[in-house]
Amino acid sequence: MNTKQQKNYNYAFVFYDVGEKRVQKVFKICKKYFKHHQKSVFRGHISPSDLIKLRAEINKVIDKGEDFVSIIKLLSDTYFDEETLGNQNINCESLFI
Amino acid sequence: MNTKQQKNYNYAFVFYDVGEKRVQKVFKICKKYFKHHQKSVFRGHISPSDLIKLRAEINKVIDKGEDFVSIIKLLSDTYFDEETLGNQNINCESLFI
Repeated sequence: MNTKQQKNYNYAFVFYDVGEKRVQKVFKICKKYFKHHQKSVFRGHISPSDLIKLRAEINKVIDKGEDFVSIIKLLSDTYFDEETLGNQNINCESLFI
Repeated sequence: MNTKQQKNYNYAFVFYDVGEKRVQKVFKICKKYFKHHQKSVFRGHISPSDLIKLRAEINKVIDKGEDFVSIIKLLSDTYFDEETLGNQNINCESLFI
């Protein structure tokens, strides 16, 4: 049994490289699930059930041959630390939708 | 004592939003330390000492009022899991420098 697959991830980073026609769609989907983004990197708490929905919604709009979406999943936000260089305020643009 | 500050992080994600004139400089610095990147998101194992060097080099070239660089630090790559939607091969472009 692969225990890694059994984990209940509750925090995620999502970044993507998708064709111009689909960028806005992927952006809108991510914005529904994450309060916070910086450029095309979304992040935040997400329940395992929302993660399933997010994945299904993204899979519906992307071109599987051309687009790329990476979801980095963590058990919680205690498993990483963040430091910001430069202007931290730029990072707050979308803290609230 | 803040134990979070004492941790020896060995893995990092770096993403940035910097002015056009400085993008190439930040990209080159990151590329020195990380084998892998996708768009402007770098990632990989990095020793605590290299992390100090990376930070110093980035701080030298960015405009602290306009630019933004985020470093997400983890103890190791066992603390997250990744899934890729779409074309996984796009993700391999710079696996080796």
